[in-house]
Amino acid sequence: MSKQKRFILTEDKIPTQWYNIQADMVNKPMLPINPQNKQPLSVEDLSHIFCTEVSKQELNQKDAWVDIPEEVLDRYKSYRSTPLVRAYGLEKALDTPAHIYFKNESVSPVGSHKLNSALPQAYYCKKEGITHVTTETGAGQWGTALSYAAKVFDIEAKVFQVKISYLQKPYRKSMMQTFGATVYPSPSDVTECGRAILAKDPENCGSLGTAISEAVETAMHTPNCRYTLGSVLNHVTLHQTIIGLEAEKQMEMAGEYPDVVIACFGGGSNFGGLAFPFLRHNILDGKKTQFIAAEPASCPKLTHGVFRYDFGDVAGYTPLLPMYTLGHKFMPANIHAGGLRYHGAGTIVSQLLKDGLMSAVDIKQLESFEAGMLFAQSEGIIPAPESCHAIAAAVNEAKKCKESGESKVILFNLSGHGLIDMTAYDMYLSGKLHNYEFSQEDVYENTKDLDEVK
Amino acid sequence: MSKQKRFILTEDKIPTQWYNIQADMVNKPMLPINPQNKQPLSVEDLSHIFCTEVSKQELNQKDAWVDIPEEVLDRYKSYRSTPLVRAYGLEKALDTPAHIYFKNESVSPVGSHKLNSALPQAYYCKKEGITHVTTETGAGQWGTALSYAAKVFDIEAKVFQVKISYLQKPYRKSMMQTFGATVYPSPSDVTECGRAILAKDPENCGSLGTAISEAVETAMHTPNCRYTLGSVLNHVTLHQTIIGLEAEKQMEMAGEYPDVVIACFGGGSNFGGLAFPFLRHNILDGKKTQFIAAEPASCPKLTHGVFRYDFGDVAGYTPLLPMYTLGHKFMPANIHAGGLRYHGAGTIVSQLLKDGLMSAVDIKQLESFEAGMLFAQSEGIIPAPESCHAIAAAVNEAKKCKESGESKVILFNLSGHGLIDMTAYDMYLSGKLHNYEFSQEDVYENTKDLDEVK
Repeated sequence: MSKQKRFILTEDKIPTQWYNIQADMVNKPMLPINPQNKQPLSVEDLSHIFCTEVSKQELNQKDAWVDIPEEVLDRYKSYRSTPLVRAYGLEKALDTPAHIYFKNESVSPVGSHKLNSALPQAYYCKKEGITHVTTETGAGQWGTALSYAAKVFDIEAKVFQVKISYLQKPYRKSMMQTFGATVYPSPSDVTECGRAILAKDPENCGSLGTAISEAVETAMHTPNCRYTLGSVLNHVTLHQTIIGLEAEKQMEMAGEYPDVVIACFGGGSNFGGLAFPFLRHNILDGKKTQFIAAEPASCPKLTHGVFRYDFGDVAGYTPLLPMYTLGHKFMPANIHAGGLRYHGAGTIVSQLLKDGLMSAVDIKQLESFEAGMLFAQSEGIIPAPESCHAIAAAVNEAKKCKESGESKVILFNLSGHGLIDMTAYDMYLSGKLHNYEFSQEDVYENTKDLDEVK
Repeated sequence: MSKQKRFILTEDKIPTQWYNIQADMVNKPMLPINPQNKQPLSVEDLSHIFCTEVSKQELNQKDAWVDIPEEVLDRYKSYRSTPLVRAYGLEKALDTPAHIYFKNESVSPVGSHKLNSALPQAYYCKKEGITHVTTETGAGQWGTALSYAAKVFDIEAKVFQVKISYLQKPYRKSMMQTFGATVYPSPSDVTECGRAILAKDPENCGSLGTAISEAVETAMHTPNCRYTLGSVLNHVTLHQTIIGLEAEKQMEMAGEYPDVVIACFGGGSNFGGLAFPFLRHNILDGKKTQFIAAEPASCPKLTHGVFRYDFGDVAGYTPLLPMYTLGHKFMPANIHAGGLRYHGAGTIVSQLLKDGLMSAVDIKQLESFEAGMLFAQSEGIIPAPESCHAIAAAVNEAKKCKESGESKVILFNLSGHGLIDMTAYDMYLSGKLHNYEFSQEDVYENTKDLDEVK
């Protein structure tokens, strides 16, 4: 009898509530504030941009558990639970005593965890009578998920795809179009903000920050339209906790509990989605699990940023968010992990990091692909460039175990597959991929006028 | 409580044997014969090309059940069982009373069912001391699967990829290289057969038949090397019966039994893999399930071919196989469903078709993509162009149910996803995809000198 590799929940065991860590945090995350009057934002303020229900979720610091609507749960069940997999192949390749597990979100129909939040966001919009949604997408994973979710709930979707990603990943655009969405490379000429950037720099490759500005502007100027965001914000992380809540039950099936929980880090929803359900046991039950966010060395807000009130977008359309940031004008290097090219971290993660309840590591691009290749050859799944950062961090932890002889239980999130990113692997294989320099000076320059968070 | 959508077997329920339908067939498939002396082939004859164990499996007409080796089962469990999914979204889109189920082989790490045979073939080679394997690949799905399986069992793989597929799907090549294989576009200049074709027609786009010739030639001229095939042959279909055996148990979980079983058809292993475990109940238990092979209208060996002794490859290196064929010199049109561009059908399927135990339909390229788009938008999964043929046939059956008011249970195989085929979807969306003419005259011309199978 071979050892069990995959742990899958039967449908009756799939969680029916999301977990809102804000309720259990001793130091609550600071509230976003209005840039004009510096007052904390209300649900009313937010619901000009977002639909009402997610605006409420965003500011909810009271309820630890939020019911998943029946219609969303029903759609979750078309791909959930995703498998928890014991990575015996990777363990063998590393010759480590560590037990490595990964949650395989890549088997979602759209190829990543992003659908977990796209479905509820589209559902709530539909329920509130919204007919159009806009969004930005970096790697294309979120845009793909929203395109499909909008189709499910019969809403029109407009997606602003960061131009570098639009060029590097033409298949992403086709996927979104196959699901019925309209896709613009960002910066585009259909918004004021996009035109302004193109006027100054016609070759601008875009960033998540710019694409957010364009999507927000479009939402504000289109009747019956709301903006949706794929990461950073609290409600997105809330929806993603389905990952960790499932993983908790699945680790129990495996008879283990993680010593280390790892996820790649762009805005924080993938990380929080896996980590928060476990972190709750650190807060409430005295568990000592270690939490590691793996961010790119070229866009390292957690390891090299500062804790400031900053805009979520380049143009400054959003509220001011209390977050670890590289400054909203920071233009990330053109790494292939497009989903991690964002200047700031969500407010919950920022508070947790400040309070020492989690940690972060920065991973260089070549190191991330090296880990991704090892994973592909030992587990058969070609990981998304974003997920490669989590794998690299997990590999580092497993190597430490080899040195110390410890059999730590390491759990990481395989947030998506890399089948749309084969150009990046092609470049890696042919030696054309390189690392990028990061300048701490730029961060001081970009953030010196921002208010400190106290 | 929402209705259950997905049915997944726990690891202890995963079948531990493959099903060999040859043992239960009243009229056994005719044996392959030696082109020189017209004598039936022996295991010894075959094992110059294939490893010994699969040569035995190829000619085994006696044992209905074949044990899956422990090492293979262990690797199966890293992705099996694949889910059986009730396609509520598609049913709703079609407004049909039919119950539509699909077996989702697209969640395999390499994206298709092909890994089911690649793993045992690589395993048997390794066990017999083989150090190198060669193969051909059309859509790239088989080549990807073999590349990974070879890496798992530490063997070197050389893959000849049909040139049109190499050009249409550059990401496939990168996937195979990521798994460590060497990839040649076929016709290539590294074989005599390839050079001969290029000399006559430098622009030749290749075909599965040509690529097979190149892979066989390379296997024959490389020390300690064997050839592996991804479809057509009996042992490949044997390995693929894991699909139908799982589906049988999963349909039982769903409390239903299929009235119609559908799969797309290239050489027959995907079709046989799903169908044969159910067809056994037609043969042995008097069930009346209908079996439909969905082939491309531009390469229709089952609906428009003739039953002859023909070569499996273009150059005539293989034994003569008793099969429905369009003639081994038939050059299929450049449809995007590269995996279906093959001139002949496996010997088991050929016998079953002749005996009226199954049926076939031909699907035009545009019809296949129309069905694929509908499936993508209603179920969220973008299907491989090959699988679109099965979906189109299922859609046609579901529409008949709508007309007749019958609630038939339709089961089809989603053999793979189309994420590496987004170029094809892009062309479909921009109106650049078209149908191809098929000429029955060509078939008469190509097959007139072949011996009839009696």
